[in-house]
Amino acid sequence: MRPVLQPKLSIQPNRLNHHLAQLAEIGRLPEGGVRRIAYSPEDGLARQQVQAWMQAAGMQVNIDAAGNLIGTYPGRIPGLPALASGSHIDTVPSGGRYDGALGVLAAVEAVQTLQDHNLRLRHPLQVIVFTDEEGGMIGSKALSGGIHPDPERYRRCDGTPIQTCLARIGGNWDQIASARRTRQDLAAFVELHVEQGGSLDREGIQVGVVEGIVGMRRSQIRITGRPNHAGTTPMPLRKDALVAAAQVILAAQDLALRIPGEQVATVGMCQVWPNASNIVPGRVELSLDLRDLSSEHLDRLMRQFQQALDEIEGQSGCRVEWIPGLQVDPALASPKIQQAITTVCTELGLSHCRLPSRAGHDAQEMARFTDMGMIFVPSLGGISHAEDEYTSPEQCAYGANVLLQTLMQLDEQY
Amino acid sequence: MRPVLQPKLSIQPNRLNHHLAQLAEIGRLPEGGVRRIAYSPEDGLARQQVQAWMQAAGMQVNIDAAGNLIGTYPGRIPGLPALASGSHIDTVPSGGRYDGALGVLAAVEAVQTLQDHNLRLRHPLQVIVFTDEEGGMIGSKALSGGIHPDPERYRRCDGTPIQTCLARIGGNWDQIASARRTRQDLAAFVELHVEQGGSLDREGIQVGVVEGIVGMRRSQIRITGRPNHAGTTPMPLRKDALVAAAQVILAAQDLALRIPGEQVATVGMCQVWPNASNIVPGRVELSLDLRDLSSEHLDRLMRQFQQALDEIEGQSGCRVEWIPGLQVDPALASPKIQQAITTVCTELGLSHCRLPSRAGHDAQEMARFTDMGMIFVPSLGGISHAEDEYTSPEQCAYGANVLLQTLMQLDEQY
Repeated sequence: MRPVLQPKLSIQPNRLNHHLAQLAEIGRLPEGGVRRIAYSPEDGLARQQVQAWMQAAGMQVNIDAAGNLIGTYPGRIPGLPALASGSHIDTVPSGGRYDGALGVLAAVEAVQTLQDHNLRLRHPLQVIVFTDEEGGMIGSKALSGGIHPDPERYRRCDGTPIQTCLARIGGNWDQIASARRTRQDLAAFVELHVEQGGSLDREGIQVGVVEGIVGMRRSQIRITGRPNHAGTTPMPLRKDALVAAAQVILAAQDLALRIPGEQVATVGMCQVWPNASNIVPGRVELSLDLRDLSSEHLDRLMRQFQQALDEIEGQSGCRVEWIPGLQVDPALASPKIQQAITTVCTELGLSHCRLPSRAGHDAQEMARFTDMGMIFVPSLGGISHAEDEYTSPEQCAYGANVLLQTLMQLDEQY
Repeated sequence: MRPVLQPKLSIQPNRLNHHLAQLAEIGRLPEGGVRRIAYSPEDGLARQQVQAWMQAAGMQVNIDAAGNLIGTYPGRIPGLPALASGSHIDTVPSGGRYDGALGVLAAVEAVQTLQDHNLRLRHPLQVIVFTDEEGGMIGSKALSGGIHPDPERYRRCDGTPIQTCLARIGGNWDQIASARRTRQDLAAFVELHVEQGGSLDREGIQVGVVEGIVGMRRSQIRITGRPNHAGTTPMPLRKDALVAAAQVILAAQDLALRIPGEQVATVGMCQVWPNASNIVPGRVELSLDLRDLSSEHLDRLMRQFQQALDEIEGQSGCRVEWIPGLQVDPALASPKIQQAITTVCTELGLSHCRLPSRAGHDAQEMARFTDMGMIFVPSLGGISHAEDEYTSPEQCAYGANVLLQTLMQLDEQY
């Protein structure tokens, strides 16, 4: 690994890593992971802790109607829109110490560093702790105006109404529309996060400059053949739905491997009827999950897949139906912010590459109304959403420095 | 269809078809099918009816310890072993009118015809109504000595002990070993049955000369990959158990289609873990059902399949385990009886072909200790075990004539 050059202005690595360790105590699991589910008492305690650190760094703290915790560090020029950073501190039921937490604490550390040196940027800086990233990104969706008016959609699995949840953390469902932000008051957003795919760790690259967050197309494929006696039905007379399904599964694999691009395709579910060892399968249902950074490429892949399905239908004698489902559009990172991150990495002597984010992040909602960028640091083995998630103290520190320097560069460009 | 020549000695088509219709009244379902489950009151009534027809045809009737109903028509030469025919009159819960019943009533009709003409063969003739063919062939297994001593193995799905079942129809579990027969007292067995595969009906052939009853190899294939995030796991790093399973399913298909022979191969069950649309499948379990007339060919196919599994394991990075299960050996028909049936068909001007039986029959148990043959007549569309099973009155009649003439030929050869 190349040595990390010392920048002119640097965060304090010990302070940052100490804060990461302190936050990880709240909801700590025996094996070292964290359980800090959104709206839980642990989530509340963690929010109080982060609020205290924000205030110590000279930020004024506010909670919007969606429960987002927002710290504002004033700028030098009155009337300029804010530059923002942040992430989340809620976790999955058995999560790691870095997913989300690193992005929040690195942003607080960046502001603290400015304050240590008595510096203010031209723009105000905002640090945002988004509400409930893991459960559906309700905080960042409220900022982008993407909340559906029906509160039933957001009722928790345990039955708790969203109104109750938001009230617990200082939010207010009835006013949630007031949380909406625009480019006019938030000019750019940069999020630091651990890479949940493992490619940086595998390749030994220090920083990932995120090109965007992939879009997703979900669909269901229903294959109808004819159930029949597995002994007495000669092979040429069969309409075996599982044989056709096997061809569909391999066609989805082909779509990901043979067609140029970085798309991924997954058939994760397969249900067979009647599912008996001595009966030729009569019906199969499959799921397809297809992800890529480009909507046009996704559309092109979907058309190619439709052709493959048509061919399988023609050859197998089975009926092959395709039922489109959930669709999430890709969120592209701003080229200006990608360039700023790249320049900073070069200045700091950090190896870096461009890559898509294949996991969802609050940044994808921010991109719906303002310029967005993301900085990835490696996560050991790509492990995330698990107790053994690990990013080294050095990696956390240089990631926070990249964030600080990027915000300083953007301050001159916006 | 070619005209059916009138043989010198012919059964009475009207009487046979009338008996078929009468028997179908016992346990008749609204849509025309039959429900006559073994040991049920309907089964008991049907057995009484057949016993009466046996006695009217000059047979002495006996029930062995396995509940088999056996009618004996004496022969001319004292001390010769019997020639036998027969089938079953129990049905699946929603069965047809011809499966089993045709074989029993045609055999009774053949004997009745001999009696009408005051004829006796050299050998005694026996007509056997086998106990519980559909539930596991307990009657024919008792004749071949294939019954396991533990009665728990034969307890009914509804919990009724086999002792109670056999007692209901005049059998006796404690004496079941006494039902065993040998070649010394039963020289040959011929069964007439409707073809449950549909190839005769499709090809317009009047009679099928059965070469044997296929053997079966069942097994389970367990594929272990690694469950992973469907978004963040790049394609080259996946160990997708369902993609490997799709290759196994197509390899099984190849085994049936590409390798010369008449084998059939079926993957009927497929279970996926965790079976979620956004998780790369970590484990899949499949069933394999492979059938053919030759044990050697089955063994060869199993070896080829093992090679295919090894290749899939090597390429996919998944672990592929093969767990062998139920194994039923093929039962070959006696060439002498096949020849006799063929000669008879030619004499009667009936189109015919040799073919395997891909469904199980009592005849397969008889083949374990004596010479066995089977005569198939077409079943419309190959439908069986269903209410719309259909074989025409003319087809039933010429089938019975083939049976009668075959028994007469065998009488001269044994």
